[in-house]
Amino acid sequence: MSREKLIFLTNDDSYRSKGFAAAIEIAKQFGRVIAIAPDSPQSGMSQAITIYNPLYLRKVREEEGVTVYSLNGTPVDCVKMAFDHLFREERVDLVISGINHGSNAAVNVLYSGTMGAAIEAAFYNIPSIGLSLTDHDLDADFEGAVKYGAKIVEAVLGDETLPRPLCLNVNVPNIPCEEIKGVRFARQTRGYWREEFFKRTDPHGREYFWLTGAFSNAEPQSEDTDEWALANGYVAVVPVQVDLTAYNQMEQLKRLL
Amino acid sequence: MSREKLIFLTNDDSYRSKGFAAAIEIAKQFGRVIAIAPDSPQSGMSQAITIYNPLYLRKVREEEGVTVYSLNGTPVDCVKMAFDHLFREERVDLVISGINHGSNAAVNVLYSGTMGAAIEAAFYNIPSIGLSLTDHDLDADFEGAVKYGAKIVEAVLGDETLPRPLCLNVNVPNIPCEEIKGVRFARQTRGYWREEFFKRTDPHGREYFWLTGAFSNAEPQSEDTDEWALANGYVAVVPVQVDLTAYNQMEQLKRLL
Repeated sequence: MSREKLIFLTNDDSYRSKGFAAAIEIAKQFGRVIAIAPDSPQSGMSQAITIYNPLYLRKVREEEGVTVYSLNGTPVDCVKMAFDHLFREERVDLVISGINHGSNAAVNVLYSGTMGAAIEAAFYNIPSIGLSLTDHDLDADFEGAVKYGAKIVEAVLGDETLPRPLCLNVNVPNIPCEEIKGVRFARQTRGYWREEFFKRTDPHGREYFWLTGAFSNAEPQSEDTDEWALANGYVAVVPVQVDLTAYNQMEQLKRLL
Repeated sequence: MSREKLIFLTNDDSYRSKGFAAAIEIAKQFGRVIAIAPDSPQSGMSQAITIYNPLYLRKVREEEGVTVYSLNGTPVDCVKMAFDHLFREERVDLVISGINHGSNAAVNVLYSGTMGAAIEAAFYNIPSIGLSLTDHDLDADFEGAVKYGAKIVEAVLGDETLPRPLCLNVNVPNIPCEEIKGVRFARQTRGYWREEFFKRTDPHGREYFWLTGAFSNAEPQSEDTDEWALANGYVAVVPVQVDLTAYNQMEQLKRLL
């Protein structure tokens, strides 16, 4: 009989979120689950690490096959705490980050704490899957995300020949599960956020701003993008790399100096 | 006569840092300078954005050709505040982020608040330069970083044919200015951080951890990397892209599901 799989979970919405419970539901189907998740919401924390504060690790749940810790840090701190402290003796087969409440498609991959953790896992050479549902609601319906998330986890765990590092950015459209048409591998959509700063005045007479904005898709007609897949009823899967070098600019730049 | 250049500055060490003053020294040589920098150190904040807190913008310095604001947010918040609030009417020619106290070579590009801001600027289609000196000391000597930073700024401002988006990750070795051998364009070194968590006990008897670690270079012999350039006395310049799609994995992955 093959060794039982060990799956590490984290997320950016905190260990109390509904999406995190949904991720546990997926992972339990495939093996033993150990999780370290932030103790407070860490959306938009990207690949941030905690430098100026001490970190407290606390066991918050333990039952047959599932152990959950909380950490007062970022999603990347959780991954580092897992692989450089907790798991020094054990082999982890897969990292799942999520299920995020809200889309991490397109450039959101760069701001997302969920994807920050998934990318960090790639540095430990462990296959990682960032899972997100395109619905910010605290009480979102994760049925489709659990169904398709489990399919993808099963496929990744079952194929030893997949490339390394492997980091998948999986986004599930916010439509009824039975209307999802399937899975599409896609590339990161070009586009950007344009922000609006809502100006207010505090009780002390000082002006302050809330950051808010909207995503602008620079290529809505491109059928090979993750945004197109989502808009057309598919689960979008983008393989993510960690080398940011713009190789295609190198020759022109070398003539600059 | 050509229009005076407008240069936007930010950083992650706060507007009070010595490296930020050094960046102002560079930028002033080329035009009018407007800066928004964090009001507290934001090292390791990556491309994080502030979602759960209001942002206060405060003018902290105004003199001939130089205006500096502070913001209680991340480096990326500073860039968004600049381009979606402050500069809605003006054309900015260049963004400089830095000069960072400490290296942002290799995978540090992903954790760095300095580079998070430079990458964010690329979404506004403005050429950006992240400048870092490989010395964490608060009182580091920025002579070499100022000299070579100015050379690179001059070259970028002087060439209208450069590709867009353009985002350069510039790291300057911590050696006397006259020993620097020149500038080398390079790729991001493969490698990763391995952390050590220093365990302590607080006055209330609770265990806590400090995150600390060391960078492990996976390819110290590769002469085309930024780490090699720095170790051999060169200023390392890596052009940075914002599309994280791992195109080379796409065909194999499409057979997965």
